Amino acid sequence: MKKGMIKVNVFYPGGEGKNFDMEYYINNHVPLVSKTLGDALKEASYDKGLGGGAPGSPETYVAIANFYFNSMEEFGQAFAAGAPTLMGDLPNFTNIEPLVQISEVM
Amino acid sequence: MKKGMIKVNVFYPGGEGKNFDMEYYINNHVPLVSKTLGDALKEASYDKGLGGGAPGSPETYVAIANFYFNSMEEFGQAFAAGAPTLMGDLPNFTNIEPLVQISEVM
Repeated sequence: MKKGMIKVNVFYPGGEGKNFDMEYYINNHVPLVSKTLGDALKEASYDKGLGGGAPGSPETYVAIANFYFNSMEEFGQAFAAGAPTLMGDLPNFTNIEPLVQISEVM
Repeated sequence: MKKGMIKVNVFYPGGEGKNFDMEYYINNHVPLVSKTLGDALKEASYDKGLGGGAPGSPETYVAIANFYFNSMEEFGQAFAAGAPTLMGDLPNFTNIEPLVQISEVM
């Protein structure tokens, strides 16, 4: 990713009663994201939470998605068109309500 | 970053009474991180929070640091040696207690 790019994070916070099907996520949701966001999505990576900063402490997020776009406009257009498809797939792999943040790469 | 790498996130949650000097962070803390973690740090990127997922909603994190290591062992060694230096620099740019998460790149 380059300085000035728009980064969109989707954080999936864990906790009691929360479930997340990592296999479905990687094998089905990730390809759906690529297909749905198309050329606007310049780069994407996906992280699986292992733990917190202190040894033995739990991770805050079960999974973190990192999406990069050239501009806020390109993200906005792609997301407006694709959001219903992507949100609609959530119940297929998790009962977590994800936290979304938009950032600028420094 | 490659599949299987260890990713360490440092999240700086914003909020009332929280301050964060982005200029000091980028110009002083970021170079200190590179110098302190040395060759163990394979890649690093830094994000500035712009907003939440819903239009006009605030960002959760003022800043997010993304650090990549080849293995948990390499991260552990570098962090054990460098943590006092890096933590000691925090009061120079923020009063936020950062949230740390360790993940695996999927």
